[in-house]
Amino acid sequence: MSLASLPTPAALIDITRMERNIARMQQRMDALGVRFRPHVKTTKCQQVVQAQLQAGASGITVSTLKEAEQFFAAGIRDIVYAVGMAPTKLEQALALRRQGCDLKIVADSVVCAEAIVAFGRAHDASFEVWIEIDVDGHRSGIAPDDAVLLAVGSILHAGGMRLGGVLAHAGSSYDHDNDAALIAVAEQERAGCVHAAERLRAAGLPCEVVSIGSTPTALRAEQLRGVTEVRAGVYAMFDLVMYNVGVNTLDDIALSVLTTVIGHQPEKGWAIVDAGWMAMSRDRGTQGRRQDFGYGQVCTEDGQVLQGYLMSGANQEHGILSRQGSPDSQIAQHLPIGTRLRILPNHACATGAQYPHYQAIAADGSVTTWPRFNGW
Amino acid sequence: MSLASLPTPAALIDITRMERNIARMQQRMDALGVRFRPHVKTTKCQQVVQAQLQAGASGITVSTLKEAEQFFAAGIRDIVYAVGMAPTKLEQALALRRQGCDLKIVADSVVCAEAIVAFGRAHDASFEVWIEIDVDGHRSGIAPDDAVLLAVGSILHAGGMRLGGVLAHAGSSYDHDNDAALIAVAEQERAGCVHAAERLRAAGLPCEVVSIGSTPTALRAEQLRGVTEVRAGVYAMFDLVMYNVGVNTLDDIALSVLTTVIGHQPEKGWAIVDAGWMAMSRDRGTQGRRQDFGYGQVCTEDGQVLQGYLMSGANQEHGILSRQGSPDSQIAQHLPIGTRLRILPNHACATGAQYPHYQAIAADGSVTTWPRFNGW
Repeated sequence: MSLASLPTPAALIDITRMERNIARMQQRMDALGVRFRPHVKTTKCQQVVQAQLQAGASGITVSTLKEAEQFFAAGIRDIVYAVGMAPTKLEQALALRRQGCDLKIVADSVVCAEAIVAFGRAHDASFEVWIEIDVDGHRSGIAPDDAVLLAVGSILHAGGMRLGGVLAHAGSSYDHDNDAALIAVAEQERAGCVHAAERLRAAGLPCEVVSIGSTPTALRAEQLRGVTEVRAGVYAMFDLVMYNVGVNTLDDIALSVLTTVIGHQPEKGWAIVDAGWMAMSRDRGTQGRRQDFGYGQVCTEDGQVLQGYLMSGANQEHGILSRQGSPDSQIAQHLPIGTRLRILPNHACATGAQYPHYQAIAADGSVTTWPRFNGW
Repeated sequence: MSLASLPTPAALIDITRMERNIARMQQRMDALGVRFRPHVKTTKCQQVVQAQLQAGASGITVSTLKEAEQFFAAGIRDIVYAVGMAPTKLEQALALRRQGCDLKIVADSVVCAEAIVAFGRAHDASFEVWIEIDVDGHRSGIAPDDAVLLAVGSILHAGGMRLGGVLAHAGSSYDHDNDAALIAVAEQERAGCVHAAERLRAAGLPCEVVSIGSTPTALRAEQLRGVTEVRAGVYAMFDLVMYNVGVNTLDDIALSVLTTVIGHQPEKGWAIVDAGWMAMSRDRGTQGRRQDFGYGQVCTEDGQVLQGYLMSGANQEHGILSRQGSPDSQIAQHLPIGTRLRILPNHACATGAQYPHYQAIAADGSVTTWPRFNGW
């Protein structure tokens, strides 16, 4: 199979770029002296995760128990399920542990900790639990100074669970676009999570792991004293949101959508392609940011950026391409029907999820199908 | 299986509501004296499409050739592929026709018409082609008065293709929120498409079918003189975008996402659930419209709307629920960990596409898994 013979739309991975992105992150983590645990939610693809592990990653992070099941079946034991545990999912988590999966689960409340302890007693089971720390008010977690932290730790420890560590994610890092701000958020993430660990230890509770991370903070942190591991996901592909954040160039983006021109509205300067929001996802993550890319940046079939040409609109299976600023009245001549293009996506996690597989392009131009999975 | 035992997140279809929606549209089309051809892109689900056909629909509309293949394999012959034909997809379309599928394809340019004719000659094949008409500047199609219309018709007819009709979709109807505007758009869609058909016929070209439609215009058109069939898709489920347009109540929405509360940030009035954008889609179609529902409207597990509670934020597997206006400082008491809720989606087509199957709930509470497919 070759790029020229692929049906459209298709989700392409440029393997050279992907490997460069993976090496860049791993080398950085090695230099900072921490383990690296990639978040596999971005690609849910064995081939990508194998490349991450081969580069030196230690274990994986998952966003669903289905990811844990699939990657455990593929031979990966060391897994953190980084979404607060729903008590009803404990049975599924226990089944994984009993099969030999070293699954870690997450709690951030007394109610959740008590439910885990009660379930453990009822099933004669012990879980390794990490406490989620809120370092930036972004989403879930316990503030580092909150009294609830010690209550949760005590309940889990006294209840026979293994209190494995603390975990934080500075999701607010996505909102910044300059290095000074990213360095500050990275330090806030580090300091908050380390502080929470120190409070637990000072209270006589175990807390071996201090796990933090997001792609921007991982790439901009100046030092990681007290941190034992970092998690990040989108760095393996990068995307236009991360380009706006300032951590990758357009030429680093490893994921793109291959599409074909199917029509024009010449007086509007529109080319219509066979990739709409179903192929790109509805993610408009660059809206209102430094540069709004619409539904994506248009490139030639071989990946050269067509400056100024964006997917400016999208219906389910139609994308509208146009030139920003001055409409291209000659677009039907510049991009005639049948022209094949690549579109760089706003958000690699969301775009990848629209596909059952990637088409991975090697440096020699050969194409291999890499399956991915979706659902729960 | 029962609602109470379903793992979360899950995509629920309320069968009673779905059947009511399907009956409502079919009765209207019957009363207006036109055939009805549902667009199956909304659900890509055999059970839903069978319900539409049983209610009286004639054939189906598809947005991908994969939909055509899947529904033809399930016994449906009369299919319109309503996206402008990419010349490279003609081989796949021909294979379907040679298997006995009565597949109609669409063209809106001289280049496309010529490519179809050339392919037909090279493969000793004839396609039935419908010409796409642009009635509202929304996307693809030829304006009803454009000289290109007759050129395309002549090329196809002279080239041995069956010129089956004209097809229009007033996608701009989604932008309105009052009946007067919808009635006007519906009339514009009807009049424009009928006018194009009359021009073709006046030029001695065949044009049997006049096919129009969108959910809002189908539900608000006052008369359909000259139209032979109507297409619509989202009406079977409805959603919050259509609620804003004004064509359904919240109680008509047949699709919802079942989710579980996994945590809180009480001082912010947040409940965190295990359905994020992966479960809801990234569709923010109600943004900037009459009522912005965030990522969705919160309901109880049995479907009662919780007025004012929205999914105000979403990460990949986390949703943030909050009360609009005044934050609910007692949210941890009102919606404790483990509470199961339903979320009504902005856009049923986008939310459904995040799932490999629906969980269909009958009036007696029984639950059946209905598969759907995705991809191309």
